[in-house]
Amino acid sequence: MTKKKNIVLAFSGGLDTSYCVPYLKEEYQAEIHTVLVNTGGFDQKELDRIEQHAYSLGSDTHQTLHRTDDYYNKIVRFMIFGNVLKNNTYPLSVSSERVFQAIAIAKYALEVGADAIAHGSTGAGNDQVRFDLVFNVVAPDLDIITPIRDQQLTREEEVAFLKDHNVDMDWSEAKYSINKGLWGTSVGGAETLTSDQPLPGEAYPSPLEREDPQTISLTFKNGEPVSIDDERLDPVELIRSLDKIGSEYAIGRDIHVGDTIIGIKGRVGFEAAAAMLIIKAHEQLEKHVLTKWQLYWKNQLSEWYGMMLHEGQYLDPVMRNIEAFLSDTQSTVNGSVSIKLSPYRFEIEGITSPNDLMNAKFGDYGEMNNAWSGEDVKGFAKILSNQINIHQSVNNHD
Amino acid sequence: MTKKKNIVLAFSGGLDTSYCVPYLKEEYQAEIHTVLVNTGGFDQKELDRIEQHAYSLGSDTHQTLHRTDDYYNKIVRFMIFGNVLKNNTYPLSVSSERVFQAIAIAKYALEVGADAIAHGSTGAGNDQVRFDLVFNVVAPDLDIITPIRDQQLTREEEVAFLKDHNVDMDWSEAKYSINKGLWGTSVGGAETLTSDQPLPGEAYPSPLEREDPQTISLTFKNGEPVSIDDERLDPVELIRSLDKIGSEYAIGRDIHVGDTIIGIKGRVGFEAAAAMLIIKAHEQLEKHVLTKWQLYWKNQLSEWYGMMLHEGQYLDPVMRNIEAFLSDTQSTVNGSVSIKLSPYRFEIEGITSPNDLMNAKFGDYGEMNNAWSGEDVKGFAKILSNQINIHQSVNNHD
Amino acid sequence: MTKKKNIVLAFSGGLDTSYCVPYLKEEYQAEIHTVLVNTGGFDQKELDRIEQHAYSLGSDTHQTLHRTDDYYNKIVRFMIFGNVLKNNTYPLSVSSERVFQAIAIAKYALEVGADAIAHGSTGAGNDQVRFDLVFNVVAPDLDIITPIRDQQLTREEEVAFLKDHNVDMDWSEAKYSINKGLWGTSVGGAETLTSDQPLPGEAYPSPLEREDPQTISLTFKNGEPVSIDDERLDPVELIRSLDKIGSEYAIGRDIHVGDTIIGIKGRVGFEAAAAMLIIKAHEQLEKHVLTKWQLYWKNQLSEWYGMMLHEGQYLDPVMRNIEAFLSDTQSTVNGSVSIKLSPYRFEIEGITSPNDLMNAKFGDYGEMNNAWSGEDVKGFAKILSNQINIHQSVNNHD
Amino acid sequence: MTKKKNIVLAFSGGLDTSYCVPYLKEEYQAEIHTVLVNTGGFDQKELDRIEQHAYSLGSDTHQTLHRTDDYYNKIVRFMIFGNVLKNNTYPLSVSSERVFQAIAIAKYALEVGADAIAHGSTGAGNDQVRFDLVFNVVAPDLDIITPIRDQQLTREEEVAFLKDHNVDMDWSEAKYSINKGLWGTSVGGAETLTSDQPLPGEAYPSPLEREDPQTISLTFKNGEPVSIDDERLDPVELIRSLDKIGSEYAIGRDIHVGDTIIGIKGRVGFEAAAAMLIIKAHEQLEKHVLTKWQLYWKNQLSEWYGMMLHEGQYLDPVMRNIEAFLSDTQSTVNGSVSIKLSPYRFEIEGITSPNDLMNAKFGDYGEMNNAWSGEDVKGFAKILSNQINIHQSVNNHD
Repeated sequence: MTKKKNIVLAFSGGLDTSYCVPYLKEEYQAEIHTVLVNTGGFDQKELDRIEQHAYSLGSDTHQTLHRTDDYYNKIVRFMIFGNVLKNNTYPLSVSSERVFQAIAIAKYALEVGADAIAHGSTGAGNDQVRFDLVFNVVAPDLDIITPIRDQQLTREEEVAFLKDHNVDMDWSEAKYSINKGLWGTSVGGAETLTSDQPLPGEAYPSPLEREDPQTISLTFKNGEPVSIDDERLDPVELIRSLDKIGSEYAIGRDIHVGDTIIGIKGRVGFEAAAAMLIIKAHEQLEKHVLTKWQLYWKNQLSEWYGMMLHEGQYLDPVMRNIEAFLSDTQSTVNGSVSIKLSPYRFEIEGITSPNDLMNAKFGDYGEMNNAWSGEDVKGFAKILSNQINIHQSVNNHD
Repeated sequence: MTKKKNIVLAFSGGLDTSYCVPYLKEEYQAEIHTVLVNTGGFDQKELDRIEQHAYSLGSDTHQTLHRTDDYYNKIVRFMIFGNVLKNNTYPLSVSSERVFQAIAIAKYALEVGADAIAHGSTGAGNDQVRFDLVFNVVAPDLDIITPIRDQQLTREEEVAFLKDHNVDMDWSEAKYSINKGLWGTSVGGAETLTSDQPLPGEAYPSPLEREDPQTISLTFKNGEPVSIDDERLDPVELIRSLDKIGSEYAIGRDIHVGDTIIGIKGRVGFEAAAAMLIIKAHEQLEKHVLTKWQLYWKNQLSEWYGMMLHEGQYLDPVMRNIEAFLSDTQSTVNGSVSIKLSPYRFEIEGITSPNDLMNAKFGDYGEMNNAWSGEDVKGFAKILSNQINIHQSVNNHD
Repeated sequence: MTKKKNIVLAFSGGLDTSYCVPYLKEEYQAEIHTVLVNTGGFDQKELDRIEQHAYSLGSDTHQTLHRTDDYYNKIVRFMIFGNVLKNNTYPLSVSSERVFQAIAIAKYALEVGADAIAHGSTGAGNDQVRFDLVFNVVAPDLDIITPIRDQQLTREEEVAFLKDHNVDMDWSEAKYSINKGLWGTSVGGAETLTSDQPLPGEAYPSPLEREDPQTISLTFKNGEPVSIDDERLDPVELIRSLDKIGSEYAIGRDIHVGDTIIGIKGRVGFEAAAAMLIIKAHEQLEKHVLTKWQLYWKNQLSEWYGMMLHEGQYLDPVMRNIEAFLSDTQSTVNGSVSIKLSPYRFEIEGITSPNDLMNAKFGDYGEMNNAWSGEDVKGFAKILSNQINIHQSVNNHD
Repeated sequence: MTKKKNIVLAFSGGLDTSYCVPYLKEEYQAEIHTVLVNTGGFDQKELDRIEQHAYSLGSDTHQTLHRTDDYYNKIVRFMIFGNVLKNNTYPLSVSSERVFQAIAIAKYALEVGADAIAHGSTGAGNDQVRFDLVFNVVAPDLDIITPIRDQQLTREEEVAFLKDHNVDMDWSEAKYSINKGLWGTSVGGAETLTSDQPLPGEAYPSPLEREDPQTISLTFKNGEPVSIDDERLDPVELIRSLDKIGSEYAIGRDIHVGDTIIGIKGRVGFEAAAAMLIIKAHEQLEKHVLTKWQLYWKNQLSEWYGMMLHEGQYLDPVMRNIEAFLSDTQSTVNGSVSIKLSPYRFEIEGITSPNDLMNAKFGDYGEMNNAWSGEDVKGFAKILSNQINIHQSVNNHD
């Protein structure tokens, strides 16, 4: 008698991955090992429910990998350092988690000696590429099985299959597909399928709950957020706490329009109060403490970092090199940022920093100064005009 | 008897340039020709008042150069194409005008056969460099005279000098220095001199006047805004009209923190309703109609364009080359953008465009598609992982 | 009786595409229309021989598309403007032609109403992707047939199949695979399959034939080469003539190591006398006539242009935008470049140009000057040091 | 009796700095402390001669700062990591030393409690800006004195002044001004003052001394050169040894045309055998061991690094950030590079490396492969064409 095959299945408990459990068991006559990587989007109650659900579907083993701190340290931290907003808008709330989860799942599959890894992605989104790409790199010898993509099933067919296998649950579809994570929540469906309509307010999970403005202070040390209003928090706690505060004002809602990895344009709503508050505060602080060329090159590298992260190429070694650059820039990113919260919006009020380069000692903008003279500036402008001057003269431009 | 020297003076009618008229007349025994370049910040009444004021100070001739359309065509247009926001915030409202005004003044000085050009800039800001730089290039043979910078006078000394010369006006200083232009109004002083405080609401010239949200539609043709709610307007009219609509909601206020040309950090408030509405609408439209790499390279070049424009290096020929690139990208930037205006904020609701690349015919994000198969994506991810896969394998990374 | 299918086959006359003719005819019961796009690599005698060979294999029609001038105008010209050398080495001799040929073939297939396009690429190189990619874009509704890639045949199997179909030729393999084109000749095989050995001299098609150095002058107008030693030539003639001159000295040989489109590293030899001479002369001339920032941004965009061209993404609209930028920079790229040719190497001796910015009138490097004073430079350095100075002081660096 | 002023003078022993000693002594009634920073360009005999000369001119103290290893570790190393060649040609042989020397001098001035620092630069070159800039940053409170720039003296006037002060030496000028350093030797004068002529062979200090080709092997560890033909050498020894080998073949001669810091174009010859051999070998090795995007971003950052280094902005903190990036990329840059030396030229023959990504195990370029199938590539090309395909279709381009 031959040994049964072992398949590790990336499991979320939704319809697609639920379908995969009995399907893979039957089709491959395999042992199914469901695994869920929690990077901060699930609470313990949900995790317990999903575990129970996995076993009820016939999973042979189920494993929850707790990776929230790790996700912060290996990815979120660098998105903060880089003020990463894809297309100047989207904090990569879900995409960055998916890549990180894929790595954890592939390593888990190697550890348990699996023969294959399965994921429940469809053939139209980004996640399929992220999973495939990471699995190909981390576990190149394991087969990748993608039942939903391969069979192009409708929801109805999946529900029917599950019913046939004695799984009778309520699979009625929500109007919006919601994906909650540490760094934000994505909201897709209905209006986001076309170009011309916004999501209605009620599509966003966090309703407006507070109208009176308040001002909070966010403190950074070496580029990382370390306290809210003098309360020191570890980074993951801080993000959760800040998200709660900001979400009451319905802050951080927006729609991202961007290029999917497979080349089509996509549109997705999101709410990400903590991410938007941290990034905008961090960015403002950096404008005070970094030099012009540090800001310039941070921008270049961070935009690239965000793009490759989004596209699942996190394991390219250039990403480690960029992280080295970004980390090196953060030694002077210290100080507190004052943020005024109002319904649906916030305003960065100002910063205080021991590393502030806007420093009265060296001359105020618009005020005369002792460190240099008018003659110095005159000489500066003279020399700076040299090349253009020569160019104009040689080429007789007007 | 020797011919008197002719000095062209860049004149705004403020204390500094007012001082310059009698000072230059006396010091250089010269004929003083005041000139003001209107790029859209002044109405006719103000221009008349300034002309009268110039003559009352002793100006020998006064000239108003009307350059609003020219300013739009040669600069604003490209800032729209490039979605130019300095440090991701500031639409270069005032700095772009100054450069353009300097060019017009230098050409005027050449036309009238002046011996020198004078400007009233102090030794601490950006404008002195913009004036000097442009004058050096456009009129390299003319002397540049800068009484305020050279003498480092206080306001009191200037007022006293003017009084001695029978100019007795009310020169009491406003709390904030306001500079109004077509593309926005800057607000400096008090809180902006340090890092930690926001400008109070009353510092901004346009108060909130309307609370009920409204949705408007802004239409672009080849990247240029051409109509509001189906009313076709020429660009300058459109900007003025849109600015009026947006300013009622107090939209477009912010504080810019950036590097001055002379290397110190500066902070300045601004309100720029039209600029922010147009740029954000244009940017969103572009996300739908341009390819990923068009968006990427437009960003790179536009950031550079904004930086050099800010720093007065508009006449470097690379700026013309960048304009050629930007113009070439705009042929498909057509369509209408729906914008919802609320007090202090606005939301881009969606776009419609004949050039929209997010097009159901080619597959929806998240929905299965006929143009490619799951196998295609699998192959795509496989090949895309090749190099990272080889790298991991060769270098035994984990 | 159903109408026979029409297949257009990209045909070079080599073993792989020869195999395809009888194979496709038999397998698809189709009419086979061979087509060869000459971008300058073939002379008329070869073209006649290939046509005859195509018919002898059973081709129903054979067409030669003459596209050399077009190839120069649409691609080579921009590679000159951009000084495009992939990985700082390779003038994209063959890869740029392949993309251009693919476009011509796809358009031809549309014109003749073909049902499918076939190409003979293997599954390991770049050409397969270039063909597939371009065909997908230009003729998205046509099937793409790739017998060699799909069947993974050995040479022996192909020869045997052809013999079975009464095609009995000498298919003995050359040690090196040579691909000749207007812009250079690639040389692959043997040593290039591993990393450690150079190609022996005899692997290169053009032997050293001349030892005595000579100096030639190459003149550019608006960035395009227009004459050699005062002999005006049209661009394609000039390239051919210059290639002949340079090849006698065995100039332009090198080995390119680079990333293939499919992510593996590849190594290929080439000789490209004309391309290297033109690019290096053009580059030197540009150093004299363009400003610092024009040179900087040309580099950025050209490197990208070369990469996308190499990878078959020539049809992305960003390529047209980059061409607009590059063209705009060339208005002052006029003048003559003196080049000394010696065996295996050449030296750019100097340039003369009406647009030369290195102009004694404005001060010599190392010699004192009237246009500015020592005080001006002192002021320049002072102001330029401001930000770093502040940074050091605030952060107490040593 | 007031204490005498102390002036530290950057001293090379040439006419300009020789003039400065008695001039400063007399003009400022000061103690003169000459200092020379040896970064590898001087041998002990020369240093002794210069010291003796300094005292004979009346220097109160003379100090030689030995900084060759430090110069390698803080600058040369990163120029190797970045393959830094200004304008794709010049290894920054002299300019990088000058910046480093300026820092050492400014620190020395602070240590000895000087009141001012003097340098002998003229008002036309780059060095004046490098000295000024660095002195302004490292020793902002010290005066900078520049007699040669300020007085615009001719050689004859300087010689006469020295004669008057009993310094009677042979100051006849060499045809070419030669500046020797660890990383290369610059050669300026005569032909380099205009655009059209090359330097004659005899202008270069190292004559051709060997005609028979030889092949050497250069080994790198973590990006740094560590041995020649299996002889392990410390980096500075290695550079000297390699320079001797290469110079016998007159390798590494070229002319650099570039933009000076003050905006004029300059032209200068150089010979830099070791620098060219190391950089080209290192670059080739990197093509084998780094991923495509590592190579891409290294290029971007290195070009910038070279530009800022050249322009004396080495102390901007972005330079440290770039160094962190570059260092991080070098962990896999290990292996040996075979280089064939011939008169006036060299050829990189190949490389061997444990980190070579061109690895037969993963498929040869041009050969079929087990890691992926033709179907995979087909899918890859399909998906890669999606966006361009949609763009063409939507916009009806042809």
